[in-house]
This record gives sequence, C-alpha cells and structure tokens, in this order.
Amino acid sequence: MSNLGITPRATDYSEWYNDLVVKAGLADHSGVRGCMVIKPHGYAIWENMQRALDDMFKATGHVNAYFPLFIPKSYLSREAAHVEGFAKECAVVTHYRLKNDPDGKGVVVDPDSKLEEELIIRPTSETVIWNTYAKWIQSYRDLPLLINQWANVVRWEMRTRLFLRTAEFLWQEGHTAHATWDEAEQEALTMLDAYRRFAEEWMAVPVLTGVKSEGEKFAGADHTYCIEALTQDLRCLQAGTSHHLGQNFAKAFDVKFQTAEGREEYVYATSWGVSTRLIGTLIMAHSDDKGLVCPPRLAPVQVVFVPMGKEEALRAATIEMADRLAGEMRALGIRVHVDKRDKESPGFKFNDWELKGACLRVELGPRDLEAGTCVVARRDTGEKSTLSLEALVAETPGMLETMQKALYDRALEFREANTHRVDTWEEFERMFEGEAGPGFVLAHWDGTTETENAITEKTKATIRCIPLRPLDPGDDAPGACVLTGKPSARRVVFAKAY
Amino acid sequence: MSNLGITPRATDYSEWYNDLVVKAGLADHSGVRGCMVIKPHGYAIWENMQRALDDMFKATGHVNAYFPLFIPKSYLSREAAHVEGFAKECAVVTHYRLKNDPDGKGVVVDPDSKLEEELIIRPTSETVIWNTYAKWIQSYRDLPLLINQWANVVRWEMRTRLFLRTAEFLWQEGHTAHATWDEAEQEALTMLDAYRRFAEEWMAVPVLTGVKSEGEKFAGADHTYCIEALTQDLRCLQAGTSHHLGQNFAKAFDVKFQTAEGREEYVYATSWGVSTRLIGTLIMAHSDDKGLVCPPRLAPVQVVFVPMGKEEALRAATIEMADRLAGEMRALGIRVHVDKRDKESPGFKFNDWELKGACLRVELGPRDLEAGTCVVARRDTGEKSTLSLEALVAETPGMLETMQKALYDRALEFREANTHRVDTWEEFERMFEGEAGPGFVLAHWDGTTETENAITEKTKATIRCIPLRPLDPGDDAPGACVLTGKPSARRVVFAKAY
Repeated sequence: MSNLGITPRATDYSEWYNDLVVKAGLADHSGVRGCMVIKPHGYAIWENMQRALDDMFKATGHVNAYFPLFIPKSYLSREAAHVEGFAKECAVVTHYRLKNDPDGKGVVVDPDSKLEEELIIRPTSETVIWNTYAKWIQSYRDLPLLINQWANVVRWEMRTRLFLRTAEFLWQEGHTAHATWDEAEQEALTMLDAYRRFAEEWMAVPVLTGVKSEGEKFAGADHTYCIEALTQDLRCLQAGTSHHLGQNFAKAFDVKFQTAEGREEYVYATSWGVSTRLIGTLIMAHSDDKGLVCPPRLAPVQVVFVPMGKEEALRAATIEMADRLAGEMRALGIRVHVDKRDKESPGFKFNDWELKGACLRVELGPRDLEAGTCVVARRDTGEKSTLSLEALVAETPGMLETMQKALYDRALEFREANTHRVDTWEEFERMFEGEAGPGFVLAHWDGTTETENAITEKTKATIRCIPLRPLDPGDDAPGACVLTGKPSARRVVFAKAY
Repeated sequence: MSNLGITPRATDYSEWYNDLVVKAGLADHSGVRGCMVIKPHGYAIWENMQRALDDMFKATGHVNAYFPLFIPKSYLSREAAHVEGFAKECAVVTHYRLKNDPDGKGVVVDPDSKLEEELIIRPTSETVIWNTYAKWIQSYRDLPLLINQWANVVRWEMRTRLFLRTAEFLWQEGHTAHATWDEAEQEALTMLDAYRRFAEEWMAVPVLTGVKSEGEKFAGADHTYCIEALTQDLRCLQAGTSHHLGQNFAKAFDVKFQTAEGREEYVYATSWGVSTRLIGTLIMAHSDDKGLVCPPRLAPVQVVFVPMGKEEALRAATIEMADRLAGEMRALGIRVHVDKRDKESPGFKFNDWELKGACLRVELGPRDLEAGTCVVARRDTGEKSTLSLEALVAETPGMLETMQKALYDRALEFREANTHRVDTWEEFERMFEGEAGPGFVLAHWDGTTETENAITEKTKATIRCIPLRPLDPGDDAPGACVLTGKPSARRVVFAKAY
C-alpha cells in the first residue's frame, strides 16, 4: 500500500483498479445495488469523450434524438434472436404508484397501480426505436435515417466493477436505417472506424478492429464489428461495437419503404455504441501505481500549477504568477488548475495530482520566480525539466502532444510485445494457464461454434474477433485449427476478456 | 387548417401547439404511455439550451456528476414532507429478470426475480444524492459542494402534453451543500438569476422571479424560488425552480460537518432545475400559425438558403453560390443549412422552413445571382429585404441579433399588456371566468393557505409567485386581501397555470 492507499498492480491488479477509481475521485459505489456514482472528476473525462465523439458523429451526418427509457414487454418479443440474447436480465417496472404505509411506516407500493403491461428499462433501444421508425419511414426519400442517442441503460449484472460493468451505465447508441445492404454495411464500417480513431487518437489506446464470431455477435445482428483493447494485466476489453442488423428489426417491426422504382422493401439497419466503459479502458491502459495517467486530449486537468513559498508574501507572488500563466493557457484552450490550498504541503499536492492524473505539473517556488524559471514534471514518465517562465505557455501544447503520442506508442509497443502466434494445442493451453491473461493469441480455428465453445470451456479463452486486416502478413493465410486440426481460413484473436 | 395542417391558434390553442410540435419535427408521442420521442429538430434546441446552461453553471463554479436512476423505496421515506409531496406517482421496479413464456409466446416476468426492496425511478434525486453526500462531507473543507446532473426523470402523469408534461423528461438538477444558511440562500438566488438570464437572454422570454407560497413550494424545501413565463393564451408556465432546502435533507440523511471551530453541524442545501419543458415555453412564447418561431441564439437553423433555378445549370450556379456563402457563415459560427432538395418547389420549401423556424431565409435565384443580390426574409416579421451578396455574410450576425431582441421586446410588451392589478373580488372572478387565462393578475392576498385554496377552488387561479421585486412601484405596498379583506403585505401574482 502506498501512502495514498492504492494497492500496487503487482499485488492485486483488480484491487489496484478499484482503489484508483475511488481514490482519484472518478467513481464510487452507490447505495443502490450494482449502480455507481460517477464523481465530478470521472464525469469530466466522460464530458470530454462525449464532446469528441459527438463531433465525429455530426461530422459524418448524424443527428441526436431521444427515445423513451421504457420498453413495453411485448416489443422485446418481436425479434426472436434479440429476445433470446438480450431481454433477460432487465429491470422491470410493474407498478406506477406508492402510497402511505397503513402502519405509518413510510411508503408501500399501491397494489391498485399494477400496469397492464410491464415496462422494461431499456437495456438497449433497438426495439423502441424501430417501433418509432415504422412511423417515420415510408419512402426512399426518408432514407438514410442517421440518428444517435446519448442515454442511460440498465442490464441487471450480478458481478459489477466500476465503469466496466454496472447495472446502469451511460452510453451513446446510434440507430440508422438504409435503403440497401451495401449502404448499411458502409455505415457499420464507418462508425467502427470512428471508434477506432477515437480510441487511438483521443484515448491513446491502440485497438484491434474485427468481426465477432457467430457465438459472440449481438443478439439480432447479421454481424457485429468491434474494437478490442489490451489491458495491463493482459486481458482483452471490448471497447465498442458496430452492428449490421440486416433487415431483422425492419421485419420484426414491419418497416418497409417504397423504392425509387416503386417497389416495397424492408429497410436495412445498423446500430453502434460505446459507453462509460471507455473510461475503464483508458484507466487500465495507461495508469500506474501512483494513480491515473490520462491522455492529455481527454484529461480534465492538463496542467496543474503548484505555487509554493513558506512565507505569506512569497506565496502570494508565486500564486499571482501562476494565475497569470494559467490565464494565458486558458486562452489557448488548455484545461488548467492552480492549486492554492494553504493547509497542504507541496509534497501532498504532488501526490494528489499524480493520483488524479494531471498531465503536467508546474512547480513554482520563490527561487524559481527570481530566476524566471519553473519546473515541469510529466505525469507519465515522471521526467522533470526546467523551463523559462517566458517559454512555458508557448511550449505547453507541444509537451501535451508529446505525452499524448508517447502514451499511444508505449501502449502499442506493449500490445505488440504481448501478441503471440500459437500453432499447437499444448502451447495454447499453456498460454491460458495463469490467472492473468497472456495478451492476444492469434491461432487458427475451424470456424465452428462447437470448437469455439470447446476452447472456451477448456481454457476460458474466447474469440475476441476475426481481424479485418491481418496484424502481420501471413495472419490471413490458411492453416489448421489449433484444437481440431481442421482447415482454418485465417488466424483469429483469442484472449481472456473482461 | 393551413396547408401544413396546423390548427390556427384562434381555433384551438392546444391543438395548434400539438400540431406544431409534431409537424415541425420537434417531438412525437411514442408507443409508450405518457412518454415522448424528442425528434432531432427538437433535440437540437435542447442541445443548444444545454450548452448555454452548462456554461453558466460552470462559470458559477459548478461541476457535473451522475447519480443512479434507481432510488431504493426506503430512501423516499426519510424526509417526511418530501415523501408526502413527491413519492406517489412513480414508476416502481419490482423484478429484475424476464424468462421465456412457458407457452412459447414471448417473455414473462420471472417471479423468482422479485426484489427484496422495490426501486423507484427517480422523480428527482435529492434522496439518492444526499445519501451519497453523507459519505463525501465530513469537514467544512469539503464545502461548498456544487454539483449538477443532466438526467432523465420519471413522474407518472395521467394527462400529458408534449414537452410540458410527460411521464419521462430530461432535465438538469443542481444539488449543493453549504456550511451556512446565508451561503445556501445566496446559491439559490444565484441560480434563480442564472435561470432568469437564460430565459431572457437566450429564450427571449421575459419571466417573473419570485418565491412560491407555502402551498406551492417544493416538497422538502424551506422555500422555493421560481421563474414564471406567460404564454400566448395568457396562461402561466413555471419554467424553472430553485429551492433552499435548509437542513431538511441533511437531517434526514444525517449529513453533518465539522466547522472550522470544531463543532458538528448539519449542512445546508439547495437544489434547482430546468427541463425540456423550456422547449414548450419557448414554443408557446413566440410561435405563430405558420409554425415555430425560435430565438436565433437557440435555433437549430439560423439561416436557410433556398437556391432556385428551373434549369439544371442555373440551379447548379445558385447552389454553388449558396454553398460558398454558407461556408463563410459557418466559419463565423452561424448554424446554416442549404436546402438542395430537387423535388420540392421553392414555395414548399418556404413553408417548410417557416414551419421549422429557420430565423432567416435567403432566397437565391438566377436573376439575383446576375444582379449580385439576394432576398432575405425574417421569420418573425415576414419582412423581406434585398441585400447585396457581398454584404450578406457580414450583416447576418446583426440581423440575427436584431431578431433576438425583437422577440424579447415583443414578448415583454405582450406580458405588460396582459398584467392586471385587481382590487375587488368581483373583478377578480370576472378575470378568471373564460377558458383562456387573463394573463398575470396582481392582487392582494392575506397570506394564508386557506385563502389561497379558496381562491383556487372558486376561480382555478393559483398563486404563481410572490415577486422578489415589485413589477410596478406600489406593488409591494400593503392592502386588503381580494377575497377576505384581511391585511395583505403586498400584491402577489395570480394566473391560470399550465
């Protein structure tokens, strides 16, 4: 245990994660089973993510809308595969009124307020949205319909983990309608690529893009694309999915359109989503035993000033200078904070901002002020450098960019060092023996769900994706299934998943 | 009925409102009882509102966070007045799983998944938030706590109206904690003033600011401040509230802090909120029989270009010019759209954009292009003017500002023309006789809930607020209650309310 109370990763990775999330003020367990409170510091990351993603969605022609939280139970039964895969662990509203307890102890559910049809809290909104699209779509001129929704959803999870798996979480879900299969396919791939770019360029997390196996695809999809990230404990995190839904929901909700040639056809659909799980992905990718390491483009605090000085007058001078420089940085759009707390020592503040993931720490003492310099410490490397106060503001954007790129490069190197190609069952089993994961294991698979299930049963490894592009030349050459020896078209990615 | 299918206001104001909301693409009834779908055009207004309000909250030191959707039933029983006033018409979650219907027809609620304690979908979040604050607040150094949440809430309304009253709606709720009564009072008034400024400067809707009577205040508050707007049918719309909660919730959830002097004291609290109801308020304030009139600062489309030309080549030229000018406007931050639909006539497009509330319409035909001019039509006045193409972009911000101000001035004039001072019961009763409201009626009231209830019973008028400042000098002079003749300290505002 460090003095900040974070369990080191080497001791217990899972405890480290939970400690970090709580102590850095990112999220907390709530009094409500399975639900988290997203605290201001964590929510600020989400707001930065939302802004960047929303801009990407709008740049690709999408608009936002809002659909009901409640889904009538009967809607869920309409699409057969969807109900099988999705409609089970859900919060169910059965009544709409409370009344005073006749015994005078608080309130009780009024039995007279039972709903005729139960309402499900949306676990995802395909059904309620396609029920609405049926009203909106008549002709090819109503297409494409490119809508996104920012919303909360609920899936009744028994084992929860802050950000990664909670009963309620926040996400965005895009739901689009198209005239042709090709156009829907293009949309699903466009949004997959938006997610990849967001992960790589904003979160500094390299991701594999691929398609899910039949066994792992979204319930109701024709096929599911995904981005998959690697954590420091060498497990795989599914960070986003983009589904080509074919005509499945259009048929379930009878959404036909008239083509330019006057024929009636069912509409093609996609849906795609990322959630507050991305915050967990970001934490797991970069952070260390001191706390959060956050890529600058998403960090709530990019620069923190720690003005110092034991005497009141000296401290006032360093604070004044910090305020001035911070003001100049704000004018450049940099997110900056001046830590003026007077009861805490500089050492405490350094630790506190390492915990909270400020990217650059500017130390400013009376002697620095005299010399016209300051000390800048970079969060990820701990590297300290002395800069002139005159140069500081102008150099800050470049230092932030350097750190952004360094985080990505380090994560990519880590992933490459932990990507393995395995050709024998013996080696495969050995790879998945330990409690931690082995990283990504590229192996041949005969393409059947039976083999997929057998492999998972024996090793806990699951197929994370069938890569869209070979990671190395040769990954898409044919081979023999690692378990059955039957023919395989290409290597697929196995890992232990969160 | 106009050709766009909007009932004129004079025929049926309520039908006019509903027609406008649906046909302008702002919102729609959903298949889920009492819930609306906020369509892209309406949601775009909400996004603009959110951005402006969020900036105001942050400029006053607030941060965002997110708390659970679910409230355990027992939380609601903790604050006695709150449960009386609030916890009744709520959606109640009683089960957490569905299973396949044994008869093979869809899904049924699994009776084995009954929750030990029912969960209420938040109608407002004081209880779940104060249950959390109890963990976060120990010392005066944890205060003030200034947190806002953007969220959906549910109140089981039997009679719904799009935007104004729906079972689920979107809002923000601020929840703050303070060391002293004075500081909480200052906070409640600061946020009330933020709401007033937002209503007046962004929505172009003048509002009365005041305090609610005991009978109308928030359940659990010491006192409630509000902003109240007037609609074109002379009813009153409560557009936002800011509550000083005293120590009520701190006592209910045992939230004490240690003062600088080492004493233990209960925390003081405020909460304040505005919702998608603001969109209804905006519509009711400005729109006309042609459709939406939207203040430019919040309009999704501030400028629409309608390039014309019967021949393909001529049309291509006007489109090219429109695109160029639109690009220049976008660079200035103006929200602009070029209507390139080729199957619709200019007349259809004019009507369509009047319906949807584009602030300025730029008509650009081949002859305009030759002459180097265009025709600009203003949505609120219908006024048309011819501008040189060279001047158009530079003049647009000024034209939008002029319209913004004109809408406010017109609404203020309308309110002043419909604010009455009444001193006899006979006149008071006559004022409230009709189906429509009489506007704001300032009358004396003896300050008792009995009289307030008696007045409402006889006339359907309610006390909307006790103004913070007299509207006219003399409004805060003493007088005799309009019903009982008993002494009254000042005039209060009566109206028929939405």
